[in-house]
Amino acid sequence: MGDPAGVGPELCLRVLRNPEVQRRCRPLVFGDAGVLVRVAQACGLGLPACVLAADEWWVEGGDQPAVVDLKSINPGGVTPGRVSAECGRAAVHYISAAVEEALKGRVAAVVTAPIHKQSLRVGGSPHPGHTEMIAELTGSSRSCMLMASPGLCVSFVTTHIGLAEVAGDLTTQRIEDVIELTSEALQKALGKKPRLAVCALNPHAGEGGLFGNREEERVIAPAIARAKRDGILVEGPFPADSLFVPDHRRAYDGIVSLYHDQGQIPFKMQAFEDGVNITLGLPIVRTSVSHGTAFDIAWQGKANPRSLEQAIFWALRLGEG
Amino acid sequence: MGDPAGVGPELCLRVLRNPEVQRRCRPLVFGDAGVLVRVAQACGLGLPACVLAADEWWVEGGDQPAVVDLKSINPGGVTPGRVSAECGRAAVHYISAAVEEALKGRVAAVVTAPIHKQSLRVGGSPHPGHTEMIAELTGSSRSCMLMASPGLCVSFVTTHIGLAEVAGDLTTQRIEDVIELTSEALQKALGKKPRLAVCALNPHAGEGGLFGNREEERVIAPAIARAKRDGILVEGPFPADSLFVPDHRRAYDGIVSLYHDQGQIPFKMQAFEDGVNITLGLPIVRTSVSHGTAFDIAWQGKANPRSLEQAIFWALRLGEG
Repeated sequence: MGDPAGVGPELCLRVLRNPEVQRRCRPLVFGDAGVLVRVAQACGLGLPACVLAADEWWVEGGDQPAVVDLKSINPGGVTPGRVSAECGRAAVHYISAAVEEALKGRVAAVVTAPIHKQSLRVGGSPHPGHTEMIAELTGSSRSCMLMASPGLCVSFVTTHIGLAEVAGDLTTQRIEDVIELTSEALQKALGKKPRLAVCALNPHAGEGGLFGNREEERVIAPAIARAKRDGILVEGPFPADSLFVPDHRRAYDGIVSLYHDQGQIPFKMQAFEDGVNITLGLPIVRTSVSHGTAFDIAWQGKANPRSLEQAIFWALRLGEG
Repeated sequence: MGDPAGVGPELCLRVLRNPEVQRRCRPLVFGDAGVLVRVAQACGLGLPACVLAADEWWVEGGDQPAVVDLKSINPGGVTPGRVSAECGRAAVHYISAAVEEALKGRVAAVVTAPIHKQSLRVGGSPHPGHTEMIAELTGSSRSCMLMASPGLCVSFVTTHIGLAEVAGDLTTQRIEDVIELTSEALQKALGKKPRLAVCALNPHAGEGGLFGNREEERVIAPAIARAKRDGILVEGPFPADSLFVPDHRRAYDGIVSLYHDQGQIPFKMQAFEDGVNITLGLPIVRTSVSHGTAFDIAWQGKANPRSLEQAIFWALRLGEG
């Protein structure tokens, strides 16, 4: 359900009633039914799902949409659009409960609504975001983020760290892992062997050693060479500013970027509404909306469920593969 | 004329014959007439300009297009599309001669064709590019790069340095200088007081200190506050990935980015052909094409002069202001 004070609850209400979602899967919201009822009233929407108790939801048969009521927060105490420790803790509870059920095999995939990083922090979570939290919950050391849209898929070697730390955090092993994970996932999603390109770190890919510390030659190129030997279709490193030009990037099914803004700037420029955030390398299928909690429009009936719908459809494709 | 082995000579031939260019200024190519003649033959173009000797070109009256023949290289020795020390040195000579004439007031602006950074280096130049070279030739300590197009203008706090050095190179004074230079230039070019936005350094602008070393609060925000006190319309720092989303960036006439790929990725995604590279903070007007030497199509009659034409028109606007 995401952060109770954000757009997550409204998005859940909207996708629960989506006919294509209902046709293709049984949507279960791990969240607070009390919050959903308040948001439904505020937004002029219904709650088109049955409410199940958290400790026995799986005994209820049927494939109707349902809310697994975790009772993590006092619904009357939630103020839409406000950072709070209670909301941060509730969001963590929804995620950990859903991930636990996925690890048990009771749900086929976890699709997450947006959480707020500051609420998470004041709520005491040590994780900067979903990706890191779910990696820990599932004991995954090799996971990475993939942003997906019809026109552009970008995976990330590093994500939520300061820009000053990026160069020092790059290793050949990590880059090779991300290339492999990206290739595997896009093979499932596209049903064919994907072609990948890897970004350089420095301006003009270092221009033959003029800028930077030859990270392209020392760290990045060896990872690409190893992945190629393993049969992956991958090229690079390419200067990132020319790689994302439409004519160039169309030659590839996926692009491996080295840090957050390098991949997110081009991704958000061309896929703001239908982007999906996917975590690769987990023992479960996990996708997410690509946007934030949008506190400025929370509980107002204005939230666009397109990214959450797309996240569900990507989860189905990755789960079927 | 740019690197003799690149697309520069062909681009010069094409803009010399452009009627709008001829109507609005007297175009002078600082280069080698012998190279231009070879390229004209190779591309099936004429050389629509008179050829003037370098040491007395300014005594020739008239406003006909002309080549100032610097005789910097043996035309027969140039191989199109190849890195060479001779070409690097010739390109430096064209630039330094044109800049010298601009400093003397004999030319109104310098518009540069592309050079190749590796030829520059093997030719012995200590500069990674035009911008740094011209800053030194003109004794300018406060210059910066502005990439301009009809839909997006982006200036740069740092440019040709390794990504690992970016965070350490940022200072409040430098960011304030770049904000000021950007505001002054866009005021001239647009004829109105421009609205500017400044990018953050870290993912999500550091998310309140979660990522990075609080560069947003310590270094960037104070520069914005000072510029505001000086009457400049400027906001930020904003997370770079959301700032470049079309709906967000349209609220601004210019964006100040902190490093090469942060600004060049979005710029090239939306302005590949009509982009112009402008150096601000010099005692002369200087603009440039935004693309490289395109060695793969050099001397083949395939070069698109649109960026060079736009660079000339931006130079005219900045010179008139």
